[in-house]
Amino acid sequence: MAISFVVGALCSAVAGYMGMRVAVEANVRTATAAEQSLESAFRISFYAGSVLGLAMVGLAVIGMSVIFLVTGQAHAVLGFSFGASTLALLAKAGGGIYTKTADIAADLVGKVEIGIPEDDPRNPAVVADNVGDNVGDVAGMGADIFDSYVASTVAVMLLGASFAETLQYQYTVIPLILCTLGVFASLLGIQFVRVREGGKPGAALNRGTIITCIIYIAMLLVLVFLGHVNMAIFWSAFVGIVAGVLIGFTSDYFTNDQHKPVQQTAKESTSGSAITIITGFSYGLISILPSILGVVIATLISFNVTQASGLPGVYGIGVAAVGMLAISGMIVSADAYGPIVDNARGIAEMAGMDHEVIARADVLDSAGNTAKAITKGFSISAAALTVLALFAAYAEVVEANGMAITISLREPLVVAGVLLGATAPPIFSALLMLSVTHNAFDMIEEIRRQFREKPGILAGTEMPDYDRCVGLAAQGALSSLVLPTFLAVGLPLLVGFVLGPDALGGFLGGAIFTGVIFALFMANAGGLWDNAKKYIESGKFGGPGSEAHKAAVVGDTVGDPFKDTAGPSINTLITVMSLVSSLFAPIIAVFHLF
Amino acid sequence: MAISFVVGALCSAVAGYMGMRVAVEANVRTATAAEQSLESAFRISFYAGSVLGLAMVGLAVIGMSVIFLVTGQAHAVLGFSFGASTLALLAKAGGGIYTKTADIAADLVGKVEIGIPEDDPRNPAVVADNVGDNVGDVAGMGADIFDSYVASTVAVMLLGASFAETLQYQYTVIPLILCTLGVFASLLGIQFVRVREGGKPGAALNRGTIITCIIYIAMLLVLVFLGHVNMAIFWSAFVGIVAGVLIGFTSDYFTNDQHKPVQQTAKESTSGSAITIITGFSYGLISILPSILGVVIATLISFNVTQASGLPGVYGIGVAAVGMLAISGMIVSADAYGPIVDNARGIAEMAGMDHEVIARADVLDSAGNTAKAITKGFSISAAALTVLALFAAYAEVVEANGMAITISLREPLVVAGVLLGATAPPIFSALLMLSVTHNAFDMIEEIRRQFREKPGILAGTEMPDYDRCVGLAAQGALSSLVLPTFLAVGLPLLVGFVLGPDALGGFLGGAIFTGVIFALFMANAGGLWDNAKKYIESGKFGGPGSEAHKAAVVGDTVGDPFKDTAGPSINTLITVMSLVSSLFAPIIAVFHLF
Repeated sequence: MAISFVVGALCSAVAGYMGMRVAVEANVRTATAAEQSLESAFRISFYAGSVLGLAMVGLAVIGMSVIFLVTGQAHAVLGFSFGASTLALLAKAGGGIYTKTADIAADLVGKVEIGIPEDDPRNPAVVADNVGDNVGDVAGMGADIFDSYVASTVAVMLLGASFAETLQYQYTVIPLILCTLGVFASLLGIQFVRVREGGKPGAALNRGTIITCIIYIAMLLVLVFLGHVNMAIFWSAFVGIVAGVLIGFTSDYFTNDQHKPVQQTAKESTSGSAITIITGFSYGLISILPSILGVVIATLISFNVTQASGLPGVYGIGVAAVGMLAISGMIVSADAYGPIVDNARGIAEMAGMDHEVIARADVLDSAGNTAKAITKGFSISAAALTVLALFAAYAEVVEANGMAITISLREPLVVAGVLLGATAPPIFSALLMLSVTHNAFDMIEEIRRQFREKPGILAGTEMPDYDRCVGLAAQGALSSLVLPTFLAVGLPLLVGFVLGPDALGGFLGGAIFTGVIFALFMANAGGLWDNAKKYIESGKFGGPGSEAHKAAVVGDTVGDPFKDTAGPSINTLITVMSLVSSLFAPIIAVFHLF
Repeated sequence: MAISFVVGALCSAVAGYMGMRVAVEANVRTATAAEQSLESAFRISFYAGSVLGLAMVGLAVIGMSVIFLVTGQAHAVLGFSFGASTLALLAKAGGGIYTKTADIAADLVGKVEIGIPEDDPRNPAVVADNVGDNVGDVAGMGADIFDSYVASTVAVMLLGASFAETLQYQYTVIPLILCTLGVFASLLGIQFVRVREGGKPGAALNRGTIITCIIYIAMLLVLVFLGHVNMAIFWSAFVGIVAGVLIGFTSDYFTNDQHKPVQQTAKESTSGSAITIITGFSYGLISILPSILGVVIATLISFNVTQASGLPGVYGIGVAAVGMLAISGMIVSADAYGPIVDNARGIAEMAGMDHEVIARADVLDSAGNTAKAITKGFSISAAALTVLALFAAYAEVVEANGMAITISLREPLVVAGVLLGATAPPIFSALLMLSVTHNAFDMIEEIRRQFREKPGILAGTEMPDYDRCVGLAAQGALSSLVLPTFLAVGLPLLVGFVLGPDALGGFLGGAIFTGVIFALFMANAGGLWDNAKKYIESGKFGGPGSEAHKAAVVGDTVGDPFKDTAGPSINTLITVMSLVSSLFAPIIAVFHLF
């Protein structure tokens, strides 16, 4: 188990490292290629992103398969998953704090106080800001999907391992096969992502996702018919994929400037920033509905189809999650593309490249934002199904240890557990966001100090001290991780050992329910504010510099830690909590106070 | 049942009407009395507030007792409770939209754009704003606690009615007796609320609350020993009161400017409004922890004490809620005092009274804000225990209709219900807040139009058209209520009839869990932003007019619909949902699709 933990953490780290390394190389090349054509710049940045996507799924599938082949135990793979998720928590939460500390501080002093453009090389925080885009967005998002991907597979393996002896092996291996097929489907799908000069990169990315899904569904059909696999597996995976794609696209409704939420928020920004905040906040809350409905429908269908076929229904819920995540190779490729083109745009600006080059980089960048919104809706919904499967796996593990478990809401210990669990995600996100504001506050002082003490910086005759800002962001992020990490690992153990396994079941349930809601709300509200600002910048409601624009900038800044720090970390939080509980379930089942 | 519904709604309306009527009369008298002394101004305003407090508990106890005596059925009192809660939903949500529409619009145009003081008679929205303080804060808060008060009593009556025949009558009547004792305790406690010139009104209000608690606990002891009542009743009620008071005072930590959260938010406001929002939002999320812990501990103790005494444990949870709410007479008196002195201050300002008078009114006003924060923490926690008791009552009603009910989180239908229920409070609050911003946007246009078309208004030579603003606020609030009301009444029925009673149980659970969290978070974040602004206005971090102050004003405006519209309405939402479910449970138990 310990070795498996280390291997999981290593695989996650290697995938993130490769992604970052390639992204950093690709930033400059994309900017240079944008001098030639949109087509070649797009190709470089997307292929660079696909390095992360494919490395991630490849390492995950190989890692899990090797551990299972060597040990023959699904339970050992749980260690791999726990290792991957622990690293993801650090990468996502730490990276998220880092990137937004630098981003907010750079913007507030640079853009708002001094009035220099974004990514201006005179800003002492500009390097920290660009580093942050790679740390938080490339490595963080990669680690985030890596952990859901592994956790959903492990959950289904654990459920399969609890089947009757004749079915056990087949149903433990099926999730690994589903993942492997997904890797090949992604490899094929990626070939279809191309864009011509004047074409739309956003449409190309979406086309790639749809084609990957179709290829994957076809592969599933072949598997089911040639491999004599239970048809319920196909339907569950199918429902998962369809739900994932639909949820991704409905998230788009709330964050795309073609629709009412963004436009209305932009319009009401003319009444000041408070109205911007309230309106965006409210639309963010409403945006959770389609995703929750999608998860509910996918859960009910996959459960009932699977139960009707004679297998335990929860297995189907897990397969739906695996189905949703199987095409992660393609999804992560499209997502990692975003920060690469974002930074390419920054480099083009800093290097003083032609107006035409920056315009091309802008086209690439806006497609990155659309891809990002869809990926986030997708990854949160997938995480929701994953933790539902993990939740079922937890109950299985407790029962396998000879203890009956009833997670009934009529038991006060369970209700106590749910109430405590439900507070964990909000408090976790609050701690991360407070770290961002505290660290940003310190960095703002540092940037102001540099401008004050070295007047040559603004004149362009003196170099700012980039390193100090990078150091501040890194130290601040690391020291801020202690309490949130305790919350993720320590709290479930505390609840389990004190209140017992039933209450811990309630705790996990509560954490899942509010976790999914907060994750969706924060990701979508953040995306909405970002795009409302960009909508005004495109010349609506007074355009750049207007009162509406100032209000929208406040909304965007509030949204930054929502969408890039707290929101995406919540997924990982609930995964880690579920994994810790399953890992310690055998001990908790025996030792608990109440 | 129908008559009982109408009587409940009428009692709630009469209590609210009396409170408002007296408050309106008392506003002017308080302002006039403030010309004499702080003591007499305080006496008038607090006694006026106590009219609402005592009218409310008196009408509730009499109404419930009469209906129970006439029908002999606890189930009939459910109709009374449903009537009271339906009216409370309209009063609280509608009043909350009304008051914040007027408040935000008046402030944004008056204070921010034109630069005239708050409550300036030249502002066309000033009358709507002052009317709103009465509608939302006096009638709304009264209706809110009225509904928790009645609902908790009914829940315990229903649970008592399910006991074995020999115990039935006694345990159905006990909650009514607990309420009656609370009325007398409040009457006595109110006599101790006095303040001298130079004294602290806030301390006087808190002293009144503590003394009322002590008197009530003494009365309970007498009841238990002389009336040969089960000792578990005493302990459950005791735990409820202690938890209620402790939760109220810990809410104070997060909203009082003596402590870190408000001061830190004020300090970071120097970096701009985005930071103010993120910091206040985060502290608001953290503030839910003490209250949830209090509710969890009160639940576990009251359940276990009661079960150990041989009674069903859930009855104890209900008694804890009734114990918490029994002293509502005192709590509501202290709370209704707030808007009275707030308006007295407004009248003093509008009437151009002496600086000294306004200073006295300011002292009275700041105590009102402290009382308000404590009441809100108290009422939300009480509502949480109430709905937990109602939740238990719902399960009893389903079982009484011959249907076994399992609300296990291992059943996918229950999980589906919980997920759907958990989305209801956030979406409900989003709808209310969007109504506020949309209506405020319209009213801002109207105020701007009046200033533009009648330049005499600002010069003081022409009267603004107050009526149009009052009309806009009222119409806007009423038409905005349709969808939220459907959500409260229609959604539980839809879930029940389609997914069945188990899923409806999950739905109620989910709504309770996120409802409590959002209600606490919104009330506390709103109070925190309000006081951070006041802290800066007291001269800290640059004082009024500084950049920090501007940022804090944005926070305060965002917090307005949080604390006065969405937050307090959520309590009533979850109560109405629970009551609807219990009312229709007999039908749903027989007819449902799945």
